[in-house]
Amino acid sequence: MVGFKNDLNIEDMLKEFRKCIIKSQKFENIDIMESMNRFSFNDVYSSIDIPAYDRSVVDGFAVNFDDVLGASLTNPVRLKVSGTVYASENTENFIEKGHAYRIYTGSKMPKNSDCVIMLEDTVDYGNEVDIFKGCFKFQNVSRKGEDLSSGQRIISSGTKITPYHIALLLSAGIEKIDVFRRINVGIINTGDELFDPDFKNTTGMMLYSLARYYDALPEIFISHDNIEDIKNKIKDALKEKDIVFTTGGSSVGEKDLVPESIESMNPEIFLHGLSMRPARSTGFAIIDKKPVVLLSGFPVASFISFSLFFNEFIKKYYNARPMRSPTVRGKITRRFTNNSGIKSLVRVKVYEKDNQIFVDPLRLTGSGILSTLTEANGIMVLDENMEGYEEGEEVTVYLTQPVGDEDKSIFPEIQFR
Amino acid sequence: MVGFKNDLNIEDMLKEFRKCIIKSQKFENIDIMESMNRFSFNDVYSSIDIPAYDRSVVDGFAVNFDDVLGASLTNPVRLKVSGTVYASENTENFIEKGHAYRIYTGSKMPKNSDCVIMLEDTVDYGNEVDIFKGCFKFQNVSRKGEDLSSGQRIISSGTKITPYHIALLLSAGIEKIDVFRRINVGIINTGDELFDPDFKNTTGMMLYSLARYYDALPEIFISHDNIEDIKNKIKDALKEKDIVFTTGGSSVGEKDLVPESIESMNPEIFLHGLSMRPARSTGFAIIDKKPVVLLSGFPVASFISFSLFFNEFIKKYYNARPMRSPTVRGKITRRFTNNSGIKSLVRVKVYEKDNQIFVDPLRLTGSGILSTLTEANGIMVLDENMEGYEEGEEVTVYLTQPVGDEDKSIFPEIQFR
Repeated sequence: MVGFKNDLNIEDMLKEFRKCIIKSQKFENIDIMESMNRFSFNDVYSSIDIPAYDRSVVDGFAVNFDDVLGASLTNPVRLKVSGTVYASENTENFIEKGHAYRIYTGSKMPKNSDCVIMLEDTVDYGNEVDIFKGCFKFQNVSRKGEDLSSGQRIISSGTKITPYHIALLLSAGIEKIDVFRRINVGIINTGDELFDPDFKNTTGMMLYSLARYYDALPEIFISHDNIEDIKNKIKDALKEKDIVFTTGGSSVGEKDLVPESIESMNPEIFLHGLSMRPARSTGFAIIDKKPVVLLSGFPVASFISFSLFFNEFIKKYYNARPMRSPTVRGKITRRFTNNSGIKSLVRVKVYEKDNQIFVDPLRLTGSGILSTLTEANGIMVLDENMEGYEEGEEVTVYLTQPVGDEDKSIFPEIQFR
Repeated sequence: MVGFKNDLNIEDMLKEFRKCIIKSQKFENIDIMESMNRFSFNDVYSSIDIPAYDRSVVDGFAVNFDDVLGASLTNPVRLKVSGTVYASENTENFIEKGHAYRIYTGSKMPKNSDCVIMLEDTVDYGNEVDIFKGCFKFQNVSRKGEDLSSGQRIISSGTKITPYHIALLLSAGIEKIDVFRRINVGIINTGDELFDPDFKNTTGMMLYSLARYYDALPEIFISHDNIEDIKNKIKDALKEKDIVFTTGGSSVGEKDLVPESIESMNPEIFLHGLSMRPARSTGFAIIDKKPVVLLSGFPVASFISFSLFFNEFIKKYYNARPMRSPTVRGKITRRFTNNSGIKSLVRVKVYEKDNQIFVDPLRLTGSGILSTLTEANGIMVLDENMEGYEEGEEVTVYLTQPVGDEDKSIFPEIQFR
């Protein structure tokens, strides 16, 4: 009888994989406005203070803290109005004792003033103003350098750049940034059927789209079902690409030639075979210090393994902060049992009804069944030692797509990718 | 004294906003491979069966269910091997009683066979095979039309297209798809200071990046602090854009001219002023059936309002399924109190330590403080009627960025956007 070379659990395999990935030294200098979702190559520091001066964060009256001590609705303090500071002005004003300046949000605080009384707590008579509330020092004031002080780090190496980073970098006067080069991904699909012009390489196209989804630069290679061709395609791909994925030919059949091809290429490391369903035939090798990841030819299994390995790769290659997958907890709608000794990744349909989240397990078998990937919006993990769930039990689901039907959340879609 | 026109809570304002948004009728026909993250305009149906025929989902032997009834390790059944079916072949084989076909994953099932015995449960002698296990009908078989049957819906209108949809559409022979046109967003930044060549329009640039993050097509307009200019810019933007955002000039000061400009344009609806911090000055109007959303000029406040309103807009405009924001629960690291009667959106830093999630509230004030947006990776919501949290209490956080430091998740980053 035949079997897989290894029978690892996925955590162990990913741990070994992680050890083999070396941080990228490839970067490019690009415009800040083009940098969204790229990963910063270096730590970037501010060379200026933001704000450059103390400024008001409300509309109101800039006053001296001592002058309004004890002011209240029944005991207002009357001050002389020295003038008005508008947001766009960068003039130097000076406040005298017993005086106030009319001031707008964002405006520079006059010298000697140290807090701002909000407009709604004042009555403005033109030359004079009544103040109906005291303040504490620097209330309603944004201090010089409070947002960023000179020498402070704005972004650290390996951070994915968000719109907020872009705004902060621009406000610090930085208009170009070094980012890691995008990852070049080789996708080698094996199978004689791929050369049939009528055959649709759907697994290849899905992986191509997935790679683009991760902002990588994919290229598809197709190989016949023979060892020489597979070896040549892997060699070609390794020359130009940072990481290579193969699909098909990695199970245990007569025509499963990828593992054999890889063995013959003297890999530094080669592990394959998982105690997991789907994606049992997953594996990876390191050849010429570059990773070659073996995926199933089936869309569901290859999607799962691709995601797992590519995420690990990104983290080490870009020195990136780890990502947490969005999860929800919900009640499982039917009893679900697990094959003992095997980790199961179960596609599920998560939905909301009567303010409760329900989790409906889809079929576990059929890693060729693409439609369960579009129908499913989550993955439920059952560990090796888990027998299953009873109907109504609470389970945790990793979301792959949005949850219907009605959203009650106040902050409906803070996206992260 | 002066104040905001309304003092609504955000849910009520968003509810009113939702009512005013009309589903878009603008679409374009594009290549499937270019369709990722776009929204499908129509329901799309399959015109073929997938798989087109029954096929094996494992490597093994295709047999007749009756022939292997009762087969076991101690009682194997010996069958004659009629031949081999490879995955790439589409030939018509026929199985006789007492016979088996060697078969590979993805191969077409021979006529009369109705299950596949896995390779590991067999011993292959070339012309004969011993079968050590029985099966149930259609075990290890993917049935014709099981993935998609002719007439079945592949994607429904308003669905964001994922790599899996792309694969499924391609496998159904569909190579072009109608998608909603991208949303044209006008961003009108008001303020005389914007015309100073040294001034950095960071709020505008952040909103521009945010709009691009949502796959929209933004354009920035800048306006002086006077009603005529603001009105003209809004009119110009409304001509070409699907939605318009204004920043600044929406608070209660002398120079807050956006609300006044909008009033003078005879809006069909106009609501502004929220009982929420930050972003109190948020509002919206409908002019010529198009929405104009008033944002604060401060980056944090404008980010929050932009996200809330743009998400609602997308949902109605694209007829999209609602999105659920990724959330985590964690222990709050210090006591946190809320201003009574006001909803607070608190920026927080979420991190993992000793397998626990901790939530560290950052400063609540300072909606001008950009750096809290890059430092924060989540938003904690305190409702109007909530007094606050004690140290150590469990709170829910909406994630805006990944959580450090170490990730234990088996499925580290299933992304959704």
